[in-house]
Amino acid sequence: VNTEPTRFHHEPEGEPELAERWADLDPEERAGAFRRLPPDEADDFFLSLSAADQAALVLALPPGERRLWMRLLAPDDAADVLMEVLPEEREDLLALLDKTTRREVGALLAFAEDAAGGLMSPRFARVRPDITVDEAIGYLRRQANLHLETIYSVYVLDSEQRLLGVVPLRQIVSAPAGTIVRDIMKTDVVYVRDDMDQESVARIFAKEGLLAIPVVDAEGRMEGIVTADDIVEVVEEEATEDIQKIGGMEALDAPYLRTPLFAMVKKRGGWLAALFLGEMLTATAMAHFEDEIARAVVLALFLPLIISSGGNSGSQATTLVIRAMALGELRPLDAMRVVRRELASGLMLGAILGALGFLRVVVGQSLFHTYGEHSTLLAATVSVSLVGVVTCGTLAGAALPFLLRALKLDPASASAPFVATLVDVAGVVIYFSVAAFLLRGTLL
Amino acid sequence: VNTEPTRFHHEPEGEPELAERWADLDPEERAGAFRRLPPDEADDFFLSLSAADQAALVLALPPGERRLWMRLLAPDDAADVLMEVLPEEREDLLALLDKTTRREVGALLAFAEDAAGGLMSPRFARVRPDITVDEAIGYLRRQANLHLETIYSVYVLDSEQRLLGVVPLRQIVSAPAGTIVRDIMKTDVVYVRDDMDQESVARIFAKEGLLAIPVVDAEGRMEGIVTADDIVEVVEEEATEDIQKIGGMEALDAPYLRTPLFAMVKKRGGWLAALFLGEMLTATAMAHFEDEIARAVVLALFLPLIISSGGNSGSQATTLVIRAMALGELRPLDAMRVVRRELASGLMLGAILGALGFLRVVVGQSLFHTYGEHSTLLAATVSVSLVGVVTCGTLAGAALPFLLRALKLDPASASAPFVATLVDVAGVVIYFSVAAFLLRGTLL
Repeated sequence: VNTEPTRFHHEPEGEPELAERWADLDPEERAGAFRRLPPDEADDFFLSLSAADQAALVLALPPGERRLWMRLLAPDDAADVLMEVLPEEREDLLALLDKTTRREVGALLAFAEDAAGGLMSPRFARVRPDITVDEAIGYLRRQANLHLETIYSVYVLDSEQRLLGVVPLRQIVSAPAGTIVRDIMKTDVVYVRDDMDQESVARIFAKEGLLAIPVVDAEGRMEGIVTADDIVEVVEEEATEDIQKIGGMEALDAPYLRTPLFAMVKKRGGWLAALFLGEMLTATAMAHFEDEIARAVVLALFLPLIISSGGNSGSQATTLVIRAMALGELRPLDAMRVVRRELASGLMLGAILGALGFLRVVVGQSLFHTYGEHSTLLAATVSVSLVGVVTCGTLAGAALPFLLRALKLDPASASAPFVATLVDVAGVVIYFSVAAFLLRGTLL
Repeated sequence: VNTEPTRFHHEPEGEPELAERWADLDPEERAGAFRRLPPDEADDFFLSLSAADQAALVLALPPGERRLWMRLLAPDDAADVLMEVLPEEREDLLALLDKTTRREVGALLAFAEDAAGGLMSPRFARVRPDITVDEAIGYLRRQANLHLETIYSVYVLDSEQRLLGVVPLRQIVSAPAGTIVRDIMKTDVVYVRDDMDQESVARIFAKEGLLAIPVVDAEGRMEGIVTADDIVEVVEEEATEDIQKIGGMEALDAPYLRTPLFAMVKKRGGWLAALFLGEMLTATAMAHFEDEIARAVVLALFLPLIISSGGNSGSQATTLVIRAMALGELRPLDAMRVVRRELASGLMLGAILGALGFLRVVVGQSLFHTYGEHSTLLAATVSVSLVGVVTCGTLAGAALPFLLRALKLDPASASAPFVATLVDVAGVVIYFSVAAFLLRGTLL
């Protein structure tokens, strides 16, 4: 966190160029290009990199230059960088920090990266409850030389560091001299445990409208604060990961243009191949209906239309459910409620598409007479199949994220393409079964 | 924004029940159930509602009870509520506010809801440059009785309200008595214009790590501040909208369980019907190849496999590009670069799936002898088509968001199902054209 705004907002001149070439450079070239940046731009550029890129860059610099860059980082960011390097390199980089930061970073490294403890800054303004506001101001003046993340809120701790309350700095400043901190502190503080996952922390920020939240350990001892600006980044990152997973791939670790081509193809190719293998079942399923297709080729014409409608309705349902889960709007207990709701939606949406499909065949027949004498039966087959396929897609899309979560997998893996693949196979079976039933003795 | 944490975090007891029933209640029932809540819960519940729901609820309450709830809202939130009501009701609700808030809300109503001006709070700590820090503290003590959004940063304005600089409150507190504010203020302030859209504001927060950012008008006069907690909400909301659009529907305005069933079916049915009409082109395209299908029914078996692969690769590409655009990583000028990158990705991914498809036919033939004497040619047809369809899907998915943005439409409308529908039609044509070319004289 920057503790104050530090310049007019503008795009630094040299940065876009290096930022754009970054993905195409190897570590040596990166270090070389980075060292040629003017000092001001180099600071900005370094701070704009991901922790992984910062780690690789620092290691690619000559040992004598590493200290400067490691010390530019706030303790929480330094901890992120150290999480990215090999254990044997970690000690060397840790040794570059000053003693206070080294101790703080060491403590942060014990936390999972995506938990409140991994996000927090260990630097915050703290006072004892039994001092006066004047003493508190004097004490904070001395603390203010630290890079405090924010002293907007002052936390009141007992001798064992347990969180007793909070006082906004403005209240300390505006209270009459001699007022005891305990008498003006708020005791019902919103706080989080250090092992709470970062998405839950983000939801509390959004719900409560906070600028900073204290983090405590299992015994109620305060360890640090998470500030809202870090949460903005968390929320962006988590949304990006979910969006990429919903799109049917592994989440990229870096911005699109900074991801090397082969790394990206790998993240996409794996899922694409898996979906392809799943989709092969459509060929297997259709092989069972080869005779029906041979007798009534017209059936094949409507196959893409029907199975894609199932995929589209499934994509809608799974997207809605995955996002609502990520926002904490849906809990496991809501599964049955959601499935009932999606059953109703699916039947209604299926009825709409079924009606459109019926019209399509009837109008096609009356204009071009392409579907033969049994066109009404064909229209009924298309129509009934659509209701079945769309309902099936909606239900699969709604249920799959819950199922994945029950299996301790990421609900966002129930991507639109994954649901579409499942529903395609089901769609082939539904369509030809309906056809076999309705068209037996006429077209079949 | 709450200016301080106000309670231990816990789920309020009665809230989930009313929150869950909310979507199924009509306005009268909502008002009735709301009035039966205990006062504490009612406050929390009211503040947890969307601006649209708050507006409808206030209007459903007896006129005598409305004032209390309107006055519970901060000026920026009150402005959001007033944006949701009819112009004739707006005046009545505005009149319920106290005079200061009424003036502030009136000014906020002039801004677009999704611009910096629409997000900002007009209440912030301001001082003149030529006073001492002691005078500043005295002045802030008097201002502190206002509900200041945050006085973590104190803004230094000239007599025409132009932003000259910023001083963190802790620096005012810790500076020696007699220090002139001008001598310790930072003059290179990160600020935004009131007409900047909220997504750009969010990106500046994430990039700069700020807790608050000043908002100025075209003449550089400071109008308010946007705080990071509001940005957390903006980022969540924008991501939710994009995710829902990528899933192939209109964005919902409310949480999933709070959206009435028919409203949801409407938002999904429109897109689903549009996609269905587009997908009808597959039936039209296939009608041109009816003879080929009749002669080689085996061709139809692989159709879903081939066209869905195009849809899946297109879904990946469009998702990546839409998200990178939303994060500001891709500008219109990057279009050609992205298209070249996706052409390379598409060819590689197509080659992978093409190889898998070739194997599938060859192995299927050697195990079950189902594909006849020309199975190798069939394998080649499947394989070449896959390269074409996957490359086509990747290119369409990459180009469509840029195209929509050039047309001033929302890039996120290039949803996974939309791209899949386009590519399905292209896939039918590619597959049967490749088949007509490679299989002429053998299977066809």
